[in-house]
Amino acid sequence: MTIYNSKNITESFAAVKWNDGKLLLLDQRKLPGELIYLDYESSDAVADAIKNMVVRGAPAIGIAAAYAVVLAARSAYQASTDSWRESIKIDLNTLSASRPTAVNLNWAIAKMCKVFDSIEGDPEPALLKVAIQIHDEDIAANHEMGRLGANLINPASQVVTHCNAGALATGGYGTALGVIRTAYKNGLISKVYSSETRPWMQGARLSSWECQQDNIPVCLVIDSAVSSLMKTGDIDWLIVGSDRIAANGDIANKIGTYSHAVSAKFHGVKVMVVAPSSTVDMQIQSGEDIPIEYRNTEEITEFNGTRVAPNDIEAINPAFDITPAKLVDVIVTEKGIVQDPDAEKMLAIFGKI
Amino acid sequence: MTIYNSKNITESFAAVKWNDGKLLLLDQRKLPGELIYLDYESSDAVADAIKNMVVRGAPAIGIAAAYAVVLAARSAYQASTDSWRESIKIDLNTLSASRPTAVNLNWAIAKMCKVFDSIEGDPEPALLKVAIQIHDEDIAANHEMGRLGANLINPASQVVTHCNAGALATGGYGTALGVIRTAYKNGLISKVYSSETRPWMQGARLSSWECQQDNIPVCLVIDSAVSSLMKTGDIDWLIVGSDRIAANGDIANKIGTYSHAVSAKFHGVKVMVVAPSSTVDMQIQSGEDIPIEYRNTEEITEFNGTRVAPNDIEAINPAFDITPAKLVDVIVTEKGIVQDPDAEKMLAIFGKI
Repeated sequence: MTIYNSKNITESFAAVKWNDGKLLLLDQRKLPGELIYLDYESSDAVADAIKNMVVRGAPAIGIAAAYAVVLAARSAYQASTDSWRESIKIDLNTLSASRPTAVNLNWAIAKMCKVFDSIEGDPEPALLKVAIQIHDEDIAANHEMGRLGANLINPASQVVTHCNAGALATGGYGTALGVIRTAYKNGLISKVYSSETRPWMQGARLSSWECQQDNIPVCLVIDSAVSSLMKTGDIDWLIVGSDRIAANGDIANKIGTYSHAVSAKFHGVKVMVVAPSSTVDMQIQSGEDIPIEYRNTEEITEFNGTRVAPNDIEAINPAFDITPAKLVDVIVTEKGIVQDPDAEKMLAIFGKI
Repeated sequence: MTIYNSKNITESFAAVKWNDGKLLLLDQRKLPGELIYLDYESSDAVADAIKNMVVRGAPAIGIAAAYAVVLAARSAYQASTDSWRESIKIDLNTLSASRPTAVNLNWAIAKMCKVFDSIEGDPEPALLKVAIQIHDEDIAANHEMGRLGANLINPASQVVTHCNAGALATGGYGTALGVIRTAYKNGLISKVYSSETRPWMQGARLSSWECQQDNIPVCLVIDSAVSSLMKTGDIDWLIVGSDRIAANGDIANKIGTYSHAVSAKFHGVKVMVVAPSSTVDMQIQSGEDIPIEYRNTEEITEFNGTRVAPNDIEAINPAFDITPAKLVDVIVTEKGIVQDPDAEKMLAIFGKI
């Protein structure tokens, strides 16, 4: 465990780092109070970290999984230099099952697996190279999405973002927050409203913290105050990330995104979804087919171990919701933007699988 | 301070009680974990209790204020038997200013003041009689609203309620929850979804607890999950209370009500607002003129003293929002129901002030 003094860190709060043969994950359950990196040397431990949200955010989960494949391969090769490709499968299945909604997880595992056949001898160097490439390409994609998305924003815009689609959710820079960063740098954004994002408070704990680090004017609001904020007429854009985008442009994202998108539609606020092409799943025809993770209800009946609801109360805790393409004005990816997304436009950019 | 063992209390959790010359308020900040009544013997202390949400809910605040006037009169009369009507004014101003949005507070104070002139000698007995009458009439009104509202509900309905407009928010029985109680008793409701109601968690802590006490099937959801719940098509009604209803039928209620109402409109879910006529403010022309309370931002940046947002973050914490009449299908009061409310229909039932 590595503890950083938050005063010494202003920029380099990478969610995922590879260092000295180990995977380091910034423990996002502790932010913004504590900046602590946890060390990982096994794929199973990384699967647990993904499940328990030490690392979260679709692209960051994908990158962590890529490095976890390196760890799994090391372990499998140590056990048997001949049959590591077989014995690694148990670890990869566990990793793949750690969270269901973000497609980037299996996208990254599949990308790593593709090179297995071409490897001779110790797989670690070759796989590490691919993992680092996935990581680097994600950061580059974020910057490109930042550029493309910011081009759509008029000066003096006020925007709402939900959850955290920032540096902490990606290889670095961010998807939705990447657009906001670039737009702010270009003088286009006057204010960001960060909705707190119950139950896990990614907006309160992570997005507002990222904005604060970059001196972007940010104001925290509870999720259910966003509608009345939009009613004022002062909000220009809702800008969010995504965990999976279906072939017809439907969007899975953090629970509450749909609620914000419905309000945006009602009030004439434009909706921008920002995600790398690794989030696009052309095998899923519509949002209705995207698996939604239901998490432990203690996430909503308790807070830091304190009960906030009666004992034995029934509760449901979907971690994501589906926003249909008709509520989305534009999807921004590093491969280009899709205005008023539909199946045809998605196919034109992302092709068939 | 009176501590009740929650196992011994199933029905009699009145928010406000008058006992042995003292006002007892159930400390709603501690529910559902602890059932503690705090004792009050001064109007200023009651004003603090209203401000700090020991007691909350527009009708309950009004009833507590009525009893506080009794306490203020006792104190003023003890100080001077001649000029108590003058010296009481300071206390009444403090009481009146304790919270701005719920009109029931000043409605109750005004109703108490009306009898001042007719009082001879010690004002306490006469004022206590009026306060008890206000309290009793509120309970009777709740039952009547329950009857009128339940008449509108079809069998096997599933409903969403927000915040707490139950026994705890009123003299007893409840407004929105009064309708739900009656409808459930009549076999019309199969399920209640209680949205947790950030930041103060009235839905999680109070409404779900009240339903549980009465064995009404209740399921807790976070506020931002209500939209996707409505999208399933399984929700028939959004049923909420109100803190003030303007002459045109616009509604002030707990922050998040507007968000739910926008979603309800979008999904064809009907919206019922249940409130006694003491909540109707015919002096306010439209919702835009209702004063909205902005509470301390620590309510959203902290939880039980634990920081959930960066230090020095800007935040806004409106406690209420305005739902325009056009999003409301029906207002239910003890004086009758107003379908598709507008200024004309409101005037017909509630008259001019």
